[in-house]
Amino acid sequence: MYNFSYANPVKIIFGKNTIKEISNEIPKDVSVLVVYGGGSIKKNGVYDQVSKALEQHTWFEFAGIEPNPHYETCMQVVDLIKSKGIGYILAVGGGSVIDAVKFISAATFYEGNATEILTKQVKVNKAMPFGSILTLAATGSEMNNGGVITIAKTQDKLAFSLPVTFPKFSVLDPTTTYTLPAKQTGNGVVDIFVHVAEQYLTYSEEDTLFQDNMSEAILRTLVEEGPKALKDPQSYDARANIMWASTWGLNGWIGCGVAQDWATHMIGHEMTALYGLDHGQTLAIVLPGIMTVLKDQKAKKIIRMGKQVFGITGEADNVIIDKTVKKVELFFEQMGIKTHLSDYGLGGDAATAVADRIDKRGWKLGECQNITGSVVREILEIRL
Amino acid sequence: MYNFSYANPVKIIFGKNTIKEISNEIPKDVSVLVVYGGGSIKKNGVYDQVSKALEQHTWFEFAGIEPNPHYETCMQVVDLIKSKGIGYILAVGGGSVIDAVKFISAATFYEGNATEILTKQVKVNKAMPFGSILTLAATGSEMNNGGVITIAKTQDKLAFSLPVTFPKFSVLDPTTTYTLPAKQTGNGVVDIFVHVAEQYLTYSEEDTLFQDNMSEAILRTLVEEGPKALKDPQSYDARANIMWASTWGLNGWIGCGVAQDWATHMIGHEMTALYGLDHGQTLAIVLPGIMTVLKDQKAKKIIRMGKQVFGITGEADNVIIDKTVKKVELFFEQMGIKTHLSDYGLGGDAATAVADRIDKRGWKLGECQNITGSVVREILEIRL
Repeated sequence: MYNFSYANPVKIIFGKNTIKEISNEIPKDVSVLVVYGGGSIKKNGVYDQVSKALEQHTWFEFAGIEPNPHYETCMQVVDLIKSKGIGYILAVGGGSVIDAVKFISAATFYEGNATEILTKQVKVNKAMPFGSILTLAATGSEMNNGGVITIAKTQDKLAFSLPVTFPKFSVLDPTTTYTLPAKQTGNGVVDIFVHVAEQYLTYSEEDTLFQDNMSEAILRTLVEEGPKALKDPQSYDARANIMWASTWGLNGWIGCGVAQDWATHMIGHEMTALYGLDHGQTLAIVLPGIMTVLKDQKAKKIIRMGKQVFGITGEADNVIIDKTVKKVELFFEQMGIKTHLSDYGLGGDAATAVADRIDKRGWKLGECQNITGSVVREILEIRL
Repeated sequence: MYNFSYANPVKIIFGKNTIKEISNEIPKDVSVLVVYGGGSIKKNGVYDQVSKALEQHTWFEFAGIEPNPHYETCMQVVDLIKSKGIGYILAVGGGSVIDAVKFISAATFYEGNATEILTKQVKVNKAMPFGSILTLAATGSEMNNGGVITIAKTQDKLAFSLPVTFPKFSVLDPTTTYTLPAKQTGNGVVDIFVHVAEQYLTYSEEDTLFQDNMSEAILRTLVEEGPKALKDPQSYDARANIMWASTWGLNGWIGCGVAQDWATHMIGHEMTALYGLDHGQTLAIVLPGIMTVLKDQKAKKIIRMGKQVFGITGEADNVIIDKTVKKVELFFEQMGIKTHLSDYGLGGDAATAVADRIDKRGWKLGECQNITGSVVREILEIRL
């Protein structure tokens, strides 16, 4: 196990009818900006619950954070914050909205060009306080300090992480996910699964049995509850188990002391930037490819996954590996997310274009830093 | 899943050679009191590492916190803190030392009779800041805000939990546990196992699959790594996995949203107060008794434990239950901790005496509040 240090100060408020509790979490002596996305919260009752909870507050709102949120949109919100004298932000939505609000909270006080937070990884040390109400189980953004922002002008999708961008609180009411389109539920479950894989399905000489067991606990939950949520979207238990598991998939704890990969996400980000695929869709394509091309390097953990998550027993190691990759692919398909480039009208030219972008950035991805552009091409070409 | 809210601000610093990092965690403008137990830290090098790390600090020390720490000892430390003008406490030891320091940190500012923190559960809202260096994996005290203190005069062993008694940081260096006597390693693993059981092995109509999976992840880790630590006390990996699992067993997260029992601990505390048994020894006696007497109530979870933790398959439910209870008992014995009253020279009169104390307190223990004195007698009589 590697040395690590970690702290996570986010207060979680979990359960039915908990949105009203924001009233006590947000100070009443500052103006609040409620930031949300495309307006689904006006249809599913969440907006009304927020309005009611903020009856005693002075608040404004900004609608229109897009999926894969744009830097340019975030800076519009920063302008609004400055013009209205806002002192607290409330993010209402999924990972895109929460990521955007994290960036906005840091960019508000940053005196240089705020793109530098993304392109130069500048360590901002002051941010506006914010809380979140989560309406989509996927990214874990509700309990970490990281985010991903797309600079629309350059098609760059870039990650940031700052000590000052933890939410003060996050409200997780699983009933807010009842009305999600099936595609969003599926994308979310794939995203959670791959977050865990990035922190678990790695090569390492280290014995991290406890973290492996914890990661498998999340994966097993997804494999059991994911299909239930698709079949019965209003199953509170399925939604609650998935929502809580999603937070754990990326609140940092399962990544403590272990090797980490993140190549699937990095490759996926390029595919979203170039072709507009949903984040979950890119992950569903790439992960089985990485598991296949890097099967020797990751053998020990793929075999563990096969046995512990999918219950594969009594086979030779190489058979378990192949079956496990197939199980992962089938699980993503079962969640309604297609796993091949051709399913999205993409071909070999896309594999080349993505590989070229990785090469251009000079990236060597993965826990062994051996995934160069040419390996990316190989990974994507077996996913045609 | 039940509604819950939770936050845990403790910073964890984990790994080899991390004790030196306390130098940056403890402010240098206040006097520090280093509090420890019986002096084993002077033999295993921990005291020297602490001395070196605090070279730039002004510090004093108090040695002599006993196992099952006494209120009376804690109040001696409070007097010392006041007389020396201490501003920060560093606990160095296992759960007893950390529990004691939590109580001391709250009692220092409490203006009434500090026994009221225990007997009346007074909600103190100010405490002296403190950090900890953990030298025994067991109680989880390093990452929670609770403690258990014994009032020696009345033989009362009582729990408290305050919002202000989280450590600011905890250093977990698994190498500090290399030199533990085998009995302490065994007691520690039993304690962790039972912490998880208290939050997992319950009756509930709720579907808490994710939490169940997480609890099983900890139990599986103990079953695999516990015997390794006994066999090879200097196995870093075994010690590290156990130490990190112990923190998770009682940092509050696996208990979020689930029913909780805690009867094994409550009965065990009475046995320690009356007969001086180690905490782990009492738990090893009581848990198999509770699993037997309450086997119908807890059937669903006992069967899960049998299958998921001990790999029992292909049997009828009642056979799985009986085998699981036996497996738990054998695991405790394998860890070197005896599981019957007679192993400690106790008989039926002890069962009666403990039951009488439960009755006298008017307690109805367990997640269904149905464990009265007479049920306690039944539980202990099958553990003769």
